[in-house]
Amino acid sequence: MSATPRLQGVFSPVLTPFSRDHAPDAERFLRHCRWLLEQDVGLAIFGTNSEANSLTVGEKRRLLDGLLEAGVPADRMMPGTGSCALPEAIELTRRATEAGCAGVLMLPPFYYKGVSDEGLFRYFASVIEGVANERLRIYLYHIPPVSQVPITRDLVARLLDRYPGVIAGMKDSSGDWNSTKAMLEAFGPRGFNVFAGSETYLLATLRGGGGGCITATGNVNPGPIVQLFKTWQAPDADAQQSRLDATRAVFAKFPMIPAMKAAIAWKTGREDWVHVRPPLVDLDAAQRKALQEGLDAAGFEMPKAQMLA
Amino acid sequence: MSATPRLQGVFSPVLTPFSRDHAPDAERFLRHCRWLLEQDVGLAIFGTNSEANSLTVGEKRRLLDGLLEAGVPADRMMPGTGSCALPEAIELTRRATEAGCAGVLMLPPFYYKGVSDEGLFRYFASVIEGVANERLRIYLYHIPPVSQVPITRDLVARLLDRYPGVIAGMKDSSGDWNSTKAMLEAFGPRGFNVFAGSETYLLATLRGGGGGCITATGNVNPGPIVQLFKTWQAPDADAQQSRLDATRAVFAKFPMIPAMKAAIAWKTGREDWVHVRPPLVDLDAAQRKALQEGLDAAGFEMPKAQMLA
Repeated sequence: MSATPRLQGVFSPVLTPFSRDHAPDAERFLRHCRWLLEQDVGLAIFGTNSEANSLTVGEKRRLLDGLLEAGVPADRMMPGTGSCALPEAIELTRRATEAGCAGVLMLPPFYYKGVSDEGLFRYFASVIEGVANERLRIYLYHIPPVSQVPITRDLVARLLDRYPGVIAGMKDSSGDWNSTKAMLEAFGPRGFNVFAGSETYLLATLRGGGGGCITATGNVNPGPIVQLFKTWQAPDADAQQSRLDATRAVFAKFPMIPAMKAAIAWKTGREDWVHVRPPLVDLDAAQRKALQEGLDAAGFEMPKAQMLA
Repeated sequence: MSATPRLQGVFSPVLTPFSRDHAPDAERFLRHCRWLLEQDVGLAIFGTNSEANSLTVGEKRRLLDGLLEAGVPADRMMPGTGSCALPEAIELTRRATEAGCAGVLMLPPFYYKGVSDEGLFRYFASVIEGVANERLRIYLYHIPPVSQVPITRDLVARLLDRYPGVIAGMKDSSGDWNSTKAMLEAFGPRGFNVFAGSETYLLATLRGGGGGCITATGNVNPGPIVQLFKTWQAPDADAQQSRLDATRAVFAKFPMIPAMKAAIAWKTGREDWVHVRPPLVDLDAAQRKALQEGLDAAGFEMPKAQMLA
């Protein structure tokens, strides 16, 4: 295992732009990635907020390859590669690892409920053995409110014992600080790199020794979130955290993905940003108006939005 | 819309046999399908108990094509074609419809939780418009204990209004007879064809005007289940139902899919039947012994098991 610097910072599950007929728009995707990098946000492409599970593995491969061909640095990417179907997870994880991605973010298989830790261990072990690349770095994706399949501490311990180094860390989207804290305390001393699942717990996670956050709202509010990451030991850190929370709260009044897309459409004037794939539904006119009023009241800005237009 | 006879009978989500390295075994799959047809069980390939969501869409296409090429009649098949990713659902539904399958059984997209009926309507509408084949017959798959995304009566009503004939019926795997009863009463008069999600409610569903059942244990106990379907108006129907329930209860003491595979391995002497894909786990030796003792005590038999060996 080669020694690599510990991954830190703010990552965002990059929104996937669609055309009116629900096809991924590779060109807008690339521009959005460049805008995020410009603001020091890493690219957790194919996350929950990317509608990744609404994409086929072929669509994901083409989007990833498009970024690589355009020169987007792989070491700033952490693609989501989990899938209910083991061969798909192996295929996409292998591709990301060979391309030099900083890591992959892996959902557990999420169709069956009540599966055992033994079954999940076998799943992750099968991916690791299938990819068979010592550069592989897996960040486990714990998001029980959506997946309904948790990553337990017993499972993390067992995976760390068997695959130290490869099991690199976690995104904790449980929404429960006690969960994140317990992961930090249990596995941080072993180099396990915990990212908060939103900026809500960014400051607490950094104070607890974690790596940063992987957050949906990084797609629309990157500047202030990155600012807190860079200055978390400054006297105004708690005040910064409060301002982040206030902006996030505006988005959280609406379905998050359509709301972020509507905000980008608003700030860029590009109406095609609103499209989502079913089963998601774009905001209606009244929702969009309420969102804009809320964001205006919170002093929300999207600097350099012209890069996205 | 052409007038076709109403679909009735016992279907089974056909178990998918795997090799030790988790590859689907097309040859054993074909033999299992032929054994089921021999006993008048229809082929709901790619269901929950088929580990369908652990298969890639490419694997499903190859398995389906293999059956068709071997001469398995398409009009005895109801493939599961739902997927979180709309293009996959369209691709597999189109293939099944063009091949002449009796219908398709469609899960809702199941990653996002708390999605709206509007979003699910758009999903199913996109599949129907995307496939654009008047022979398409969709059976909606209501299995909230697993998918966590229900098919509500409001959604069924809206789909039936917009796509009469195409929306052909439902498999109700809620495990709640009141749900099945309400679907039968609300939509049966409009020709909506309700199948019980297991043989547990086979007799009640037939008495309520439903089409039959689509049941996991059809894979291992087809004869007695089909017998009840054929003689449900006979005086001993309730006694038959009780015997079905007793056999099912033995399997239900264990994880169902590994238990059914272990039973087939036992009765055929083919040890490779035990393999499941992660995150599922095959039964251990003690579980297999307990399963066999329970099945022996219940008088369980698998006639013509040599067809599977």
